[in-house]
Amino acid sequence: MMLEKTTRLTYLFDFYQSLLTPKQKSYMSLYYLDDYSLGEIAEEYSVSRQAVYDNIKRTEAMLEQYEEKLLLFQKFQERQKIMTKLREFSAVMANHNQYEVLLQELEKLD
Amino acid sequence: MMLEKTTRLTYLFDFYQSLLTPKQKSYMSLYYLDDYSLGEIAEEYSVSRQAVYDNIKRTEAMLEQYEEKLLLFQKFQERQKIMTKLREFSAVMANHNQYEVLLQELEKLD
Repeated sequence: MMLEKTTRLTYLFDFYQSLLTPKQKSYMSLYYLDDYSLGEIAEEYSVSRQAVYDNIKRTEAMLEQYEEKLLLFQKFQERQKIMTKLREFSAVMANHNQYEVLLQELEKLD
Repeated sequence: MMLEKTTRLTYLFDFYQSLLTPKQKSYMSLYYLDDYSLGEIAEEYSVSRQAVYDNIKRTEAMLEQYEEKLLLFQKFQERQKIMTKLREFSAVMANHNQYEVLLQELEKLD
């Protein structure tokens, strides 16, 4: 699997797994989180490799449809960007407070 | 309708309307956003008042099920609380910057 696609689907699975059936969840979890092959999942559930493949492909399409409608992953990424900026800002503020402490020490020396 | 229930369902509709059918969306929108009565919606769509009522009740149950699974409204409320605190913090910082400007003016007078 391509790494970028895997990462995306792992995130989509994380956001929308509560909307999937138990079987869909199991197959997706084994395939994307536990790195099972299609053949290994097929053996585990005593079904054909093709059945597992079809189920996973349908689930992937469902996850993409949910994302198209609810945009939870997209909004998560946007929030992450803002969080990064807020964290940088927070670091500046921490330095600022140190600056403040030094200023106060200077004042005491008057 | 009770105000609190109306507010909650208006929010749930806002978060999950993309997952509803066009008819569900129309009925909910007229009922919750445009304050139509069940009878007025029934007349508008040439259906029985009971049909509109049943459709809206089913949609409300669906919205609550989506919320149970995805918690978008709950997380929104939690984020709002944190945003309020961040805004208060931002006001303190604005004051802090003013303090800073005054300190710099003082320094210039040395």
